[in-house]
Amino acid sequence: MAGEEGEGLKVLGLQVSPFVLRVCLALNMKGVSYEYVEEDVSNKSELLLKSNPVHKKVPVLIHNGKPICESPVIMQYVDELFAGRPILPTDPYERATARFWAAYADDKLFPAWYGMVKAQAEEERAEKAKETLAAIEHMEVAFAKCSGGNAFFGGDSIGYVDIVLGSFLFWFEAVRRVFDLEIINASKTPLLAAWAERFVGTVEAKEVLPLPTADMAVQYINKLHAPLPPP
Amino acid sequence: MAGEEGEGLKVLGLQVSPFVLRVCLALNMKGVSYEYVEEDVSNKSELLLKSNPVHKKVPVLIHNGKPICESPVIMQYVDELFAGRPILPTDPYERATARFWAAYADDKLFPAWYGMVKAQAEEERAEKAKETLAAIEHMEVAFAKCSGGNAFFGGDSIGYVDIVLGSFLFWFEAVRRVFDLEIINASKTPLLAAWAERFVGTVEAKEVLPLPTADMAVQYINKLHAPLPPP
Repeated sequence: MAGEEGEGLKVLGLQVSPFVLRVCLALNMKGVSYEYVEEDVSNKSELLLKSNPVHKKVPVLIHNGKPICESPVIMQYVDELFAGRPILPTDPYERATARFWAAYADDKLFPAWYGMVKAQAEEERAEKAKETLAAIEHMEVAFAKCSGGNAFFGGDSIGYVDIVLGSFLFWFEAVRRVFDLEIINASKTPLLAAWAERFVGTVEAKEVLPLPTADMAVQYINKLHAPLPPP
Repeated sequence: MAGEEGEGLKVLGLQVSPFVLRVCLALNMKGVSYEYVEEDVSNKSELLLKSNPVHKKVPVLIHNGKPICESPVIMQYVDELFAGRPILPTDPYERATARFWAAYADDKLFPAWYGMVKAQAEEERAEKAKETLAAIEHMEVAFAKCSGGNAFFGGDSIGYVDIVLGSFLFWFEAVRRVFDLEIINASKTPLLAAWAERFVGTVEAKEVLPLPTADMAVQYINKLHAPLPPP
């Protein structure tokens, strides 16, 4: 399945999207190169609309002209297609466990976090913040189970759940700056706090290009909450 | 990976759940036998709570004492563990496409359909019915693409997307009876209408035990909308 590494690989992305970052991290893990195209989501390209007619969203991976959409689908595609370190564990039960926690992050943690970021009312934000913290506490337990005492969810090196959760980290930093909330913190989720430091220090995370930053996420949040221009 | 077929397989289920049906169908596809345990969701068993402490929901597959939760995770686990006909396509791009459409059914079709079923106000139900029909039209297009002119999403025989969508069919029949709405119908979604007839005629669908019925789903809907007992 190797041999065509990097050939005709294009990522349609948005730098501030954690879901796009996942795809870049997955490709970095496999050591394959790709062309990155930043989308203007207020004026989506024909290529994006044609490649993802159902959701019309980034990320899209285009491989030899064929589009693959939705970050969990793309990550698994990349894992199955390219040789190199496996992204998902090789043991079926561990694979199931990794898929379970990745889905948990998408189905519970992400909606709570995004609900908090976009909430206009204080009460709603507090409610969503509470849900976010409850979800991250589950992820702390998950880390203890998945890592088996190693540095990452994936063991000695990063894997599927590391990529999924790690892609949120620059957003968590933005939330800390804007809302003064530490989603991962050393007292309540010490395992994840130590993991997060290790994660951002990995080669895969350092070498993502273009690298998203917490500044960008802060800007995004500020835009969401900017007063409307006068009519 | 085969050789331990059927050994120590237990499904914690609820007959009226399409997600439980998926698991039973996946196991039937592999020809492995299992013990089925019906849960009382108003009084969940210790085994269920211990096996799925995060979501506390069925289905759970317990394999040699180890629990696997969430139907897409379970289906893929069953596929990877047991020999026999593959549930997901073997080609990576086709696998990605199948995962995409299965996720679409869960993320778009299911919430719309369930929103319609539980809506108390007519207006909300009409809105959710519209969303459900829009989602099923996407699935009609998906069928044309995935099946490649064959009988099923999976080609000559049922596969991942067939199981995911097929597990809703008894519920669609219940919706037809209670709300007079044909979610899949011969004029708007002719490919799916023909597919649905073929699906319910497959050995895998016929041999599911215990077999859920539209009557059960009708009962469930009626309970949801029953007037509250006097205080």
